[in-house]
Amino acid sequence: MSANSGHWDAELFRREGHRMVDWIAGYLDGGNRQYPVLSRLAAGDVGRRLPKTAPATAEDPAVVWQDFLDVVLPGVTHWNHPGFMAYFSITGSGPGILGELLSAALNVNGMLWRTSPAATELELEVLQWLRRALELPDDFFGFLTDTASVSSMLGLATAREAADLDIRQRGMSGRSDLPALRVYASDQAHSSIAKGCIALGLGLDGYRPVPHNADYRMDTRALTSAIAADRRAGRIPIAVVATVGTTSTTSVDPVREIARICADEGLWLHVDAAYAGTAALCPEHRWALDGCELADSFVFNPHKWMFTPIDCSALYTRHRELFRRAFSLVPEYLTTPLGGSEHAVDLMDYGVQLGRRFRALKLWWVLRSFGLDGIRERLREHIRLAQCFAAFIDRAPAFERVAPAPFSVVCFRARPEGLAGAELDSFNLHLLERVNASGEVFLSHTRLDGGIALRVAIGNLGTTEADVRRCQELLLAAVCEQETRRSPAGR
Amino acid sequence: MSANSGHWDAELFRREGHRMVDWIAGYLDGGNRQYPVLSRLAAGDVGRRLPKTAPATAEDPAVVWQDFLDVVLPGVTHWNHPGFMAYFSITGSGPGILGELLSAALNVNGMLWRTSPAATELELEVLQWLRRALELPDDFFGFLTDTASVSSMLGLATAREAADLDIRQRGMSGRSDLPALRVYASDQAHSSIAKGCIALGLGLDGYRPVPHNADYRMDTRALTSAIAADRRAGRIPIAVVATVGTTSTTSVDPVREIARICADEGLWLHVDAAYAGTAALCPEHRWALDGCELADSFVFNPHKWMFTPIDCSALYTRHRELFRRAFSLVPEYLTTPLGGSEHAVDLMDYGVQLGRRFRALKLWWVLRSFGLDGIRERLREHIRLAQCFAAFIDRAPAFERVAPAPFSVVCFRARPEGLAGAELDSFNLHLLERVNASGEVFLSHTRLDGGIALRVAIGNLGTTEADVRRCQELLLAAVCEQETRRSPAGR
Repeated sequence: MSANSGHWDAELFRREGHRMVDWIAGYLDGGNRQYPVLSRLAAGDVGRRLPKTAPATAEDPAVVWQDFLDVVLPGVTHWNHPGFMAYFSITGSGPGILGELLSAALNVNGMLWRTSPAATELELEVLQWLRRALELPDDFFGFLTDTASVSSMLGLATAREAADLDIRQRGMSGRSDLPALRVYASDQAHSSIAKGCIALGLGLDGYRPVPHNADYRMDTRALTSAIAADRRAGRIPIAVVATVGTTSTTSVDPVREIARICADEGLWLHVDAAYAGTAALCPEHRWALDGCELADSFVFNPHKWMFTPIDCSALYTRHRELFRRAFSLVPEYLTTPLGGSEHAVDLMDYGVQLGRRFRALKLWWVLRSFGLDGIRERLREHIRLAQCFAAFIDRAPAFERVAPAPFSVVCFRARPEGLAGAELDSFNLHLLERVNASGEVFLSHTRLDGGIALRVAIGNLGTTEADVRRCQELLLAAVCEQETRRSPAGR
Repeated sequence: MSANSGHWDAELFRREGHRMVDWIAGYLDGGNRQYPVLSRLAAGDVGRRLPKTAPATAEDPAVVWQDFLDVVLPGVTHWNHPGFMAYFSITGSGPGILGELLSAALNVNGMLWRTSPAATELELEVLQWLRRALELPDDFFGFLTDTASVSSMLGLATAREAADLDIRQRGMSGRSDLPALRVYASDQAHSSIAKGCIALGLGLDGYRPVPHNADYRMDTRALTSAIAADRRAGRIPIAVVATVGTTSTTSVDPVREIARICADEGLWLHVDAAYAGTAALCPEHRWALDGCELADSFVFNPHKWMFTPIDCSALYTRHRELFRRAFSLVPEYLTTPLGGSEHAVDLMDYGVQLGRRFRALKLWWVLRSFGLDGIRERLREHIRLAQCFAAFIDRAPAFERVAPAPFSVVCFRARPEGLAGAELDSFNLHLLERVNASGEVFLSHTRLDGGIALRVAIGNLGTTEADVRRCQELLLAAVCEQETRRSPAGR
């Protein structure tokens, strides 16, 4: 180490940095394929190989690097692998990764405008780039948070503030004047909505799941009934969450119809478009955001399907002042009595977290390096690959598709003759594990009306048609093998 | 771009990565000194230079890089600069920066054990390394969050759950059975505690600031009185927050005494040691955590004074199951019906956010690259530099120290003859701006009992004794200049 900097000196940083960049370059460009997508380690395998205490003295960087390769890497499930098709498949792209490197080097905390004007202004501008590209209204103010979980919680907290019940000041406990508050979302909404209700003190009882229709979209008649029933019971509905791209099936709630109900009822409309919002960059998929211009708050995650490393969630609102009213709290040590600017925006005022990483840098790097057309081209390719897979499922007698596939996620199940209910679920879960054990792909599952469904999600930039075909082969082979085992001859 | 990867291909990534690593190597090793610490731009200066829309097509990486240098960099306030002495001074160190690079490349979401066993197990183990190094009890379970704001909010949410009022299920609204809940903290506690109370629905009224004594430590008699008064009024106290290293003066609340009160009263004790917890790695500063072994939840931030890039906050609790009870919510699509392990820990169960970055990697890299002794050596040097500065203030007739300086932060003010009250505050704020305008250092301020105080915080690895002396010179020169202006001769 250099005595005068206390850091690694320039030479050492350069040597270690080049080593790592070279490794990453190879990893991203196909090197990741040598690893099983889903880690094969058992619980405790990594922990067991780590010493029980931190080293007392500095270790050789080469030893640390080797331990990364030997101890850490085998325990990594490779989200940045072309075979990762579980949950929502994501990509940390080259420019996004380097943007994150630069953020870490600058180590800026953009809590106040003044604590890095560029962090705030780049964030505001890039969020406006995305707003325009998504054809959202001019009065949408956008900023970044870490996750959709937090974005949605902030949206609901602001809805609570918008209800004018003085909850910021007086809270919700010990108030005989305060009726029970209610938030509505489809029963297909993400678990973070319920978790947000728990955190905000609305409770699970304050979260009302609304049934879905046959296509897993919110049943708006059921929504209207639920609201009416709550009002009759003396409760106060405050918000509805509509989902554009649900986690199980990527279904899209009828946002325009929900927005109409919210307008009639005076309710806050929060739209969770965490996954599918990105698709609307393509004109042919812009329908997914139909009605979202009426939202009071709207979230989509560039870290999901826009090639930006996690975390990066974009939160928009047309009620900027309400967000400030809900969250702004400025102690003296964070004021800027002189040398600030009345035109400056302090982004700490719009959420719970004071510390704010310079997340806009990686997003800016991604947008400029791909260009909107480059992003669109890749979204289209992912959707094409998913549709190829859907067509395979539709053709294959051993499988059935169990939900529409509007974007890049396909829900399906094996349908062996004579199996139903728990046996069918078990067959599919074992099928899933068998395919995942290949190390070549990693799929996940969900539960739909008919039971367990498997999911193939396409979203990694490295995924090719050959990967999708390989996934199909693995599924077919696994079904055959499981079928053979359960047939009399196989016993 | 490479057609077959969709990313930049290996060659392009390597070229861009090396360019960036080389720049960062120079930046960290003194190159940062060429920039003014505090950005000199006016509000809108960065935004104005950015185009209004994202580019349609991919741009040349060299152009993006040049724009970073020309447009973004002038708007950066350099937190990673040796002259950064505002707020809490921090360092993104070389190994921490490269750890972040690797995390971005792997792009892992450690929500479940299975979605990257290494992310979970490295996190749990490294947090145990730190627990041992801080001599905290064996039964402290630790994990990482993004910020102390979130860590404290989670601690208070779990305190709310621990009160056995069925708030997770039933919420807090519409409950005539639920008395007003109260959380106590010193009036010197960080604003995030009050913000957490707002978010959790306790309201600002639910947050009871307790007066401080002459050394800015919580007055425990006032705490006892406040609790008793609330109980008499039929309210329910649920938690006390003790601060180890307050934001204004780094004062340390009498944690052991507060813990005794919490035990007597059956209250949750949350300790916010975000800044000063790190100091306790040195035996001679371990006193700061005296009594913290009795905490129910405890937070300190490696991203503050442990050379780890933001964000990285370490949260400990002895009530792991209560955290789970407060937050766990597992939809079908996140279950691991087969292929999981009963011994596996799913860290998404312990907080609000589902998405979890692989933050442990950078922390591990930092701990191994510095070694505990290396970290201690640097903490001691920062404290020594701060004490040098404190001695200068104590000697200089133009200044006075306004609070004890137990760690690396010194609070002081200029004390020109004949000025008091608002005039004295204004003098000091103008002095602050004058010194900050130098570009060589960046200090911040707070408000203490006697009015505005200036703060010098030492925490950057590049800061040397010469930097502290230069800061002293700038302060003296600025005082002289301001004094001259207000003297008759100078008018």
